[in-house]
Amino acid sequence: MTPGPGLHRTQLPLGFKTSGVNSGVRRYRPDFGLIYSEVDACAAGVFTLNSYKAAPVEYSLKLLPSSNIRAIVTNSGQANAATGTKGVEDNLAIAQAVAQELTVSPNQVLMASTGVIGAFLAMDKLLPVIPEMILRLNDVAESFALAILTTDLVPKAITTVVELSTGPCRITGICKGSGMIHPNMATMLGYLLTDANISSDLCHTFLKEVTDLSFNMISVDGDTSTNDCVFMLANGVSGASLVTDQDHVVFKKALLDVSQFLAKSIAADGEGATKLIEVKIKGAANLHIARQAVRAITLSPLIKSAIHGEDPNWGRILAKLGAAEVPFEWLNNMNLKIQDHLVFEKGSPSDFDRALVKESLKTNQVNIYIDFDKGVFEAKGWGCDLSKKYVEINAEYS
Amino acid sequence: MTPGPGLHRTQLPLGFKTSGVNSGVRRYRPDFGLIYSEVDACAAGVFTLNSYKAAPVEYSLKLLPSSNIRAIVTNSGQANAATGTKGVEDNLAIAQAVAQELTVSPNQVLMASTGVIGAFLAMDKLLPVIPEMILRLNDVAESFALAILTTDLVPKAITTVVELSTGPCRITGICKGSGMIHPNMATMLGYLLTDANISSDLCHTFLKEVTDLSFNMISVDGDTSTNDCVFMLANGVSGASLVTDQDHVVFKKALLDVSQFLAKSIAADGEGATKLIEVKIKGAANLHIARQAVRAITLSPLIKSAIHGEDPNWGRILAKLGAAEVPFEWLNNMNLKIQDHLVFEKGSPSDFDRALVKESLKTNQVNIYIDFDKGVFEAKGWGCDLSKKYVEINAEYS
Repeated sequence: MTPGPGLHRTQLPLGFKTSGVNSGVRRYRPDFGLIYSEVDACAAGVFTLNSYKAAPVEYSLKLLPSSNIRAIVTNSGQANAATGTKGVEDNLAIAQAVAQELTVSPNQVLMASTGVIGAFLAMDKLLPVIPEMILRLNDVAESFALAILTTDLVPKAITTVVELSTGPCRITGICKGSGMIHPNMATMLGYLLTDANISSDLCHTFLKEVTDLSFNMISVDGDTSTNDCVFMLANGVSGASLVTDQDHVVFKKALLDVSQFLAKSIAADGEGATKLIEVKIKGAANLHIARQAVRAITLSPLIKSAIHGEDPNWGRILAKLGAAEVPFEWLNNMNLKIQDHLVFEKGSPSDFDRALVKESLKTNQVNIYIDFDKGVFEAKGWGCDLSKKYVEINAEYS
Repeated sequence: MTPGPGLHRTQLPLGFKTSGVNSGVRRYRPDFGLIYSEVDACAAGVFTLNSYKAAPVEYSLKLLPSSNIRAIVTNSGQANAATGTKGVEDNLAIAQAVAQELTVSPNQVLMASTGVIGAFLAMDKLLPVIPEMILRLNDVAESFALAILTTDLVPKAITTVVELSTGPCRITGICKGSGMIHPNMATMLGYLLTDANISSDLCHTFLKEVTDLSFNMISVDGDTSTNDCVFMLANGVSGASLVTDQDHVVFKKALLDVSQFLAKSIAADGEGATKLIEVKIKGAANLHIARQAVRAITLSPLIKSAIHGEDPNWGRILAKLGAAEVPFEWLNNMNLKIQDHLVFEKGSPSDFDRALVKESLKTNQVNIYIDFDKGVFEAKGWGCDLSKKYVEINAEYS
């Protein structure tokens, strides 16, 4: 798989087009984007569990799953959250205006927003540029990927080709990062587009499964925001469909790879981040505890700071695992590796070369491997280090 | 109540003495301390929920509740956690040596440690200074309060006098801070000493109740460490006991005041902290959610950073409450005040003067008041802001 940002053009699956335009909410760069499918697409979504959902989230989750989605509209700059009845009306007005221009029904247009909570949509800026946004639809992902960003440093998009028994299909993933971002913004948005022929129910099953192993396993600040969504659209234009068991396996694997690539790119682009942290746990006797433990490590400011300082601080990891309700018997049986160095072996500190391990942390990816040797369950997740830059960005906005 | 640190001598309750000596683990300052009761004291304790408990925690929790405790020994520098069988033996050896010098049973000596996880006790340094530690026992709290510190900037001790129907009694509280501290250290230790005559069962009841409203409502980094303990000792030397209902009320209120004073002093002394944050929630229809919401706010790096930057960022608070599973209906009915300024009223952003609110944050205590107007439950808790200094301290230790 080739990385998305910057280096090349990310070709979209057949029958999809995207665009991004500047509406004037942002000064220069695109802030209003459209994903368009030339034919009805089967679609599913997963949404924030935050009880205070933004207007576009409430709108889109009611439409899904669906077998005739034609578009997804996304604006950046205003989250349209905590905006009451007017927020609901504004959201609907944008959906209707885009639907009218595309000559589809508003029920075929999904919506997403990201930006400042409590800010109303700039209707006077967004509505007039809808025709231009449609005019600019094209077959690569870049301008849409750019239009949805808030404080991400790089756009995030990737395409992969999957060989099914019925022919090749494509999957494109596009996302923007969550958390650690400007005041009142903390949205993770993800879009998975494929030209395979997949029912909306199967889309939903796939989406839930891969999201749990990718977007749900990145920790930036530990919350789901008011606006988080991940959408999957399958328009079938390639003619390829999932017939054999092998087709299912191969397709799901590719979808997971795309999702994990995007999830890692979000973690690596966390605000102020200088290092991606990957945590792998194996040998757990319980999946829930394993996942919880991965998240606990990637969220810990003590561990994140230590990694920023390139300090192989196994004691903090051990204490965090204990606090995350990992049973004493597991910890007492644990092997813990930082990079390739065993720092804790079968429940006891190992006699490792501290200088060597410290040296191995002078890189942009830090791997933490834990083996409890107590069962068959595994979990994997990603986070980033905590730098002074993070505090600077988040404290000194006003 | 007068504050403990620095300004005066904190007189201990009758029949208690404490001391602190330098064993050589630290370079200069006291690192080994003793609390001594001249007569058998009723005692209770609450302990870390971390599954990976340090040797002194496992030891002390087996002895409590008890009606004949005579001493508590505490060392700082080495946590005696993740130290296996040798850690258990070392802990017992210290308890036995102190017991022998005091001519009491080891079962009458409680133990606590704080410091680096994985480091063994420096037995060659600690054992030889036990006689000196006993020789130096005196009737003020200061040298013990100093001996238990790790990276706290100030010792924390306070005494209050309580008038019971049977005469006056005293309560002294001593503690050290938790979290946000040097690699592998994250211990909160608390000691509540009274010369009132109270059974160990009642001590336990009181201790659980006040701990839930004080030490358990401070968030520094969100964990309970391997070594956290809070002890309560009642030696009855004042002759005063709890006879009337009013005695119970007055005593518990004083114990809570002492505990909350200590808890707030820990939050205010969080590493790198420049502001104490107090969060008060009222009008909740459910106590658990109210407490969870308070903790969520005091833990949020986004909110902590914003307060550090004196940014009245109500959107982050709203999003965090939603993520903490506060029901939408409560949020939609919420009044939110930052300092004395109403920033969100009955579910809508209020038209507040941003510059004025920002100005009001230029102080060392920030108050966040939330009223859901949905029920009778309240919760209160404390945290601190997140500064670059925090990252500096925690990243740049090695």
